[in-house]
Amino acid sequence: MIPHVSARPLDIDTFVSLCKRRGFMFQSSEIYGGLSGVWDFGPLGAEMKRNYKDAWWRAVIQERDDMVGLDSAILMHPRVWEASGHVENFTDPLVDCLKCRQRFRADQLEDRICPQPPCPNQFTEARNFNLMFETTIGPVQESGNKVYLRPETAQGIFVNFEHVRSSMRRKLPFGIGQCGKSFRNEITIGKSFFRVREFEQMEVEYFVKPGTDEEWHRRWIEDRLAWYRSIGIRSENLRVRAHEADELSHYSKGTSDIEYRFPDGWFTKVWGEIEGIANRTDYDLRRHSEYSGKSLTYFDEETNEHYFPYVIEPSAGVDRGVLVALIDAYDEEPDKDGVRVVLRLHPVLAPIKVAVLPLSKKEPLTDIARGIRRDLSRHWMVQYDDTQAIGRRYRRQDEIGTPFCVTVDFETVNDHAVTVRDRDTMEQIRVPIADLVPAIEQLLAEKAAACAG
Amino acid sequence: MIPHVSARPLDIDTFVSLCKRRGFMFQSSEIYGGLSGVWDFGPLGAEMKRNYKDAWWRAVIQERDDMVGLDSAILMHPRVWEASGHVENFTDPLVDCLKCRQRFRADQLEDRICPQPPCPNQFTEARNFNLMFETTIGPVQESGNKVYLRPETAQGIFVNFEHVRSSMRRKLPFGIGQCGKSFRNEITIGKSFFRVREFEQMEVEYFVKPGTDEEWHRRWIEDRLAWYRSIGIRSENLRVRAHEADELSHYSKGTSDIEYRFPDGWFTKVWGEIEGIANRTDYDLRRHSEYSGKSLTYFDEETNEHYFPYVIEPSAGVDRGVLVALIDAYDEEPDKDGVRVVLRLHPVLAPIKVAVLPLSKKEPLTDIARGIRRDLSRHWMVQYDDTQAIGRRYRRQDEIGTPFCVTVDFETVNDHAVTVRDRDTMEQIRVPIADLVPAIEQLLAEKAAACAG
Repeated sequence: MIPHVSARPLDIDTFVSLCKRRGFMFQSSEIYGGLSGVWDFGPLGAEMKRNYKDAWWRAVIQERDDMVGLDSAILMHPRVWEASGHVENFTDPLVDCLKCRQRFRADQLEDRICPQPPCPNQFTEARNFNLMFETTIGPVQESGNKVYLRPETAQGIFVNFEHVRSSMRRKLPFGIGQCGKSFRNEITIGKSFFRVREFEQMEVEYFVKPGTDEEWHRRWIEDRLAWYRSIGIRSENLRVRAHEADELSHYSKGTSDIEYRFPDGWFTKVWGEIEGIANRTDYDLRRHSEYSGKSLTYFDEETNEHYFPYVIEPSAGVDRGVLVALIDAYDEEPDKDGVRVVLRLHPVLAPIKVAVLPLSKKEPLTDIARGIRRDLSRHWMVQYDDTQAIGRRYRRQDEIGTPFCVTVDFETVNDHAVTVRDRDTMEQIRVPIADLVPAIEQLLAEKAAACAG
Repeated sequence: MIPHVSARPLDIDTFVSLCKRRGFMFQSSEIYGGLSGVWDFGPLGAEMKRNYKDAWWRAVIQERDDMVGLDSAILMHPRVWEASGHVENFTDPLVDCLKCRQRFRADQLEDRICPQPPCPNQFTEARNFNLMFETTIGPVQESGNKVYLRPETAQGIFVNFEHVRSSMRRKLPFGIGQCGKSFRNEITIGKSFFRVREFEQMEVEYFVKPGTDEEWHRRWIEDRLAWYRSIGIRSENLRVRAHEADELSHYSKGTSDIEYRFPDGWFTKVWGEIEGIANRTDYDLRRHSEYSGKSLTYFDEETNEHYFPYVIEPSAGVDRGVLVALIDAYDEEPDKDGVRVVLRLHPVLAPIKVAVLPLSKKEPLTDIARGIRRDLSRHWMVQYDDTQAIGRRYRRQDEIGTPFCVTVDFETVNDHAVTVRDRDTMEQIRVPIADLVPAIEQLLAEKAAACAG
């Protein structure tokens, strides 16, 4: 891990301002006043989200021989959500204030923010409100055509279990993973990045023989914790917390959360969930068998038995993970100009891997610099920047976490070499242009090793 | 291009069967009877779709210095769709049959399939039906909270135009691209892969100075056509067709489609759209300025003018593109066992790059083969297959388009080398295990060059 030097905790306003100013995140439809609980990823956020999902896919699908991927749709048959228990159980208790007519979560009344002047505490009785978004499919608006926006990607895996198993000729244990959008019509939103209505998930359903489920649950918790360290999240900010019995979802035999320690002052609770790893037992496959009438049991050739596999589910939020990676990478270093802001991102996550900075806006430097940009961009995401003083350009790249800057200077014309500057040490080395691609490849690999925990 | 040898056109049933049997596509929620117009990508389809989108991102965002990416949300403020013209114009005319009560598109009555026995042709007058899916956001179900599932990703780019331009310090011409889900509540669906209600788009909005728009339109048409060739779609199956005046959308000054020639017998029209490249003029930025009250003009430092940029929009469908790549790659080769089915996919698109096939299921071959799989999977998507005769395993890999198979045989124990078999030529070469990664890297590069048009 690369040591951080910041003396003060990152505050929310500084972070939100950086996200917007540098193109990581914007509020959805902001020119129309925004849509509460929905965020857009700007150019740098979009790159970082791609990198984050790719790192997951690589570790969880590509490099494992017991996993395959899937990409199931957001819209599903409405019976799916009856079978899964979401129509019945995926609800929050709501009350209305009798005076101001505003609606609140009954279990969060102490957190409510009433309009001014504050209302007296007179509420209706609580009634359950389902958090699934509904829409109507087909040209007839009848009840039979009601469908939901999925509140989790998991069910798309369960209903395809038998298709995937047979087309991929799989035996237990094996898993199916996917990334995709999910939607939850949360009541209380505010301006937070962290409670959102539209979000992306990375979910694994890992199918095992009953009786081996607790061992696999333990292994997945370890694997996933190691993954967060491998992408540079600092170990001291990560922990595992097992759910209490009264926290468990209706399908869960046991759940452990991987939690992140947010900077002081962000939330009332310091530790927040970034991934939940649940033992869903055979609940989902059994229910879908009952509701669909199609057998979703597994035939075990060794024991000659048919049974429902148990399922271990590591379920992570993409948006929250990207934010945590940004927060964890943020550092402020005192320097002669005051403070240098630097995102010490793992190079796998960094939205831009290399910046190309010509010292002048004129020929022949720009011509050389553009050629370098073109060559490097076949390998990596590159940014070309020729505006303002070189010091400011370095600072700009530090602030977005670019691991290396390539500076084309007046000497380049003679020695056909450039300066490569390191984001963290600020050390500069001279590299011949002809060797630049392998040199940066090497530097990125070293930086990755230095960033991993 | 790698020549095809098939004597007969690919028929739909053969294709759909292959897609399902080999895990490319499944109907959504099939165990519940399916959801019309919605499809899931199976493990191989998911990999191929990832590859297809990555190839686009690389060519259109990463390698260009005039483009940046974005990832805007599906849910947007409802005013967006008033400004864009979708609330008013994104409709189909519908009629009801007075006898059977079924609903049809008035402009497609000749294509209708009535229940048995057929009804007489007595219909209600046509009324407009909006194709956007609606849902309700927040806990109160009032009209003010109605939002839509976006029918195109484009508007997410337009409303963020100024945020992106300023955070990325861009000057004209420059473009913003993104991939993401869109939804259209199509009336007539049937069982087709090709008319769907949930789909993914890859869209670019390219902002230019008015007056240069026709030149940029021409350039983008050329670039996009070249891209389809570069990923191996055969040139003779591609063409560009300019829209007639009466086909143009409400925002378009001119649109050209890139079309693909489908095999005989698939559709009544042989050529089908895979990408539309429209000149949207300044319609969208101008309307969003009017509706939001926020200025979305551009200040041109050279001419000291404020104006609305014109927009060129290359808009491609991901799902359809993946299907076209599969169809185009399909080939049947006569051989001694009857016919060899082979997908001659460009290696960039192939879901599996290398298969590892041990000739026996026992030590020491499996141990060596597993080690090879582990090493190769750090670089590529690999499949390990140890079941059935080696000939059948080769055929299985041919049928899913795997460019190379690595066979671990009994000689491997002595010579520490393996056989690498080429999907298209079926030639085999012997490669030392120690050289396998660079050898396959080289072979994949040569195959890519052979597949590109």
